[in-house]
Amino acid sequence: MIGEVPGVTEGDIFRDRQALHDAGVHGGVMQGIGGGGNSIVLSGGYVDDVDENELIIYTGQGGRDPNSGRQIADQELKRGNLQLARHYTEGNPIRVTRGHQLRSPYAPESGYRYDGLYRIDHFWHEQGQDGLLVYRYRLIKIRPTEIVQPPTAPTSHQGAAPAGTQNPPRTGVYTVRVIRNSAVANHVKAIYQHRCQISGEILETPAGRYAEGCHIKPVGRPHDGPDTVENLLCLSPNMHVLFDKGSIAVADDFTLIGVPGNLEVHQDHPISLDYLRYHREHIYKLG
Amino acid sequence: MIGEVPGVTEGDIFRDRQALHDAGVHGGVMQGIGGGGNSIVLSGGYVDDVDENELIIYTGQGGRDPNSGRQIADQELKRGNLQLARHYTEGNPIRVTRGHQLRSPYAPESGYRYDGLYRIDHFWHEQGQDGLLVYRYRLIKIRPTEIVQPPTAPTSHQGAAPAGTQNPPRTGVYTVRVIRNSAVANHVKAIYQHRCQISGEILETPAGRYAEGCHIKPVGRPHDGPDTVENLLCLSPNMHVLFDKGSIAVADDFTLIGVPGNLEVHQDHPISLDYLRYHREHIYKLG
Repeated sequence: MIGEVPGVTEGDIFRDRQALHDAGVHGGVMQGIGGGGNSIVLSGGYVDDVDENELIIYTGQGGRDPNSGRQIADQELKRGNLQLARHYTEGNPIRVTRGHQLRSPYAPESGYRYDGLYRIDHFWHEQGQDGLLVYRYRLIKIRPTEIVQPPTAPTSHQGAAPAGTQNPPRTGVYTVRVIRNSAVANHVKAIYQHRCQISGEILETPAGRYAEGCHIKPVGRPHDGPDTVENLLCLSPNMHVLFDKGSIAVADDFTLIGVPGNLEVHQDHPISLDYLRYHREHIYKLG
Repeated sequence: MIGEVPGVTEGDIFRDRQALHDAGVHGGVMQGIGGGGNSIVLSGGYVDDVDENELIIYTGQGGRDPNSGRQIADQELKRGNLQLARHYTEGNPIRVTRGHQLRSPYAPESGYRYDGLYRIDHFWHEQGQDGLLVYRYRLIKIRPTEIVQPPTAPTSHQGAAPAGTQNPPRTGVYTVRVIRNSAVANHVKAIYQHRCQISGEILETPAGRYAEGCHIKPVGRPHDGPDTVENLLCLSPNMHVLFDKGSIAVADDFTLIGVPGNLEVHQDHPISLDYLRYHREHIYKLG
């Protein structure tokens, strides 16, 4: 089950992993990523993991020696890692539980505490300890105001629809992706007259052309990419998604990777090769 | 100037419109929409306007008889209305000032109070009094947490960049558009296997296909469209923008308006003709 579980409220404490499993919060008693990728348990994990209450950086599973706990192989985009990545793509809410063993100010004193719904707002990979590949997820607590509860109209459809349409959906309509803009992004878009640097597309609306500023090295934790012209591309919404989600990258000579062609680069737009490389190494998906 | 004005703080009171103009908050002493469309003053306006503090529904300018105040002609997408619409497209922040004459619990006792930055998260048109066209804007208060302050890296670019890149941008990187999802939208996307019903495009990412659920009759105030299969389309990000911003619409026979072709409609997806019509009448831009 995705999202809220009937009978379970944020803040509920469970004695152990079995109780957590039995309540439907987290499928499975061993893994950090629950069945279906619908939930995670924070209980110590990786040294680089971050717990800032409303912001979590979580490392995927796999590649660890069960005895020493050390990373001995690359992680793979399969099973729990892939399920989480799919939820990231769809923006589905993830149930987060903190275990007492978690070294964080937010860990419960004992047992396991269900801490509500988060969404994965970012997903990337990096070389962790010993140069081995790990997948990482940034989760943001879903605020009640991010969940729009639209009125449910009577349905007259013939096909099978999710049970949620018969009852008010538990999580309503929730935020999955936030498009940002800035004065600097507007400047870059003006250089290209809102033409997509990857596809050349132009979106015309009655109120003017529309394009999106895409930060090459992502802003926000933990990448902390700057909001400067060197770190921005003017892209169509489609290309912005494909670039952000690792389907497309740009080589140092501005040829495109993942699709044919070249990035359009204007002489007044100095793009940082360092940031392009960072994107290739952390966002663009290998293979 | 777009965004914050140096020396002006949210909550500042100004004696009159001249003082507001002189401080740089709102260009012009008569109009509700300020110079450049960078600001608005709420002071009574239209009977259907809404002031719920963090949410404002504001009617555009024009078409009113100066003596009676009654609407006597259609409004046009020009001047202030068009400038606001462009800021909507770019997601630029709008300075909002409340005047004492405003019939709202949030109006100041006297004078004009600068109430901070809002963004226009929705824009449409409707037939107001006497069947005449008015443009309407929904504004949402920008929360500090919506503004990401990325670190500014030293810039080495040659072309002229906005002064903001030399100093930390006053408004940082701010939210312009929020993509939402829901269990019902996932159901509709599954029907089409994430294929765009307008363009037929499929976006493949390493973590699965990506598409967006588009509510035909928008959710949220004041349209209150439901989150049901009849009110959803599975669209690519590009088509979602063009549909939401009124470049494309769908006729009752599912032919496309604004681009050639037809909407792909699966037999298990009953789309409401009422909602398509609502979209044509309120979102799709005439001419």
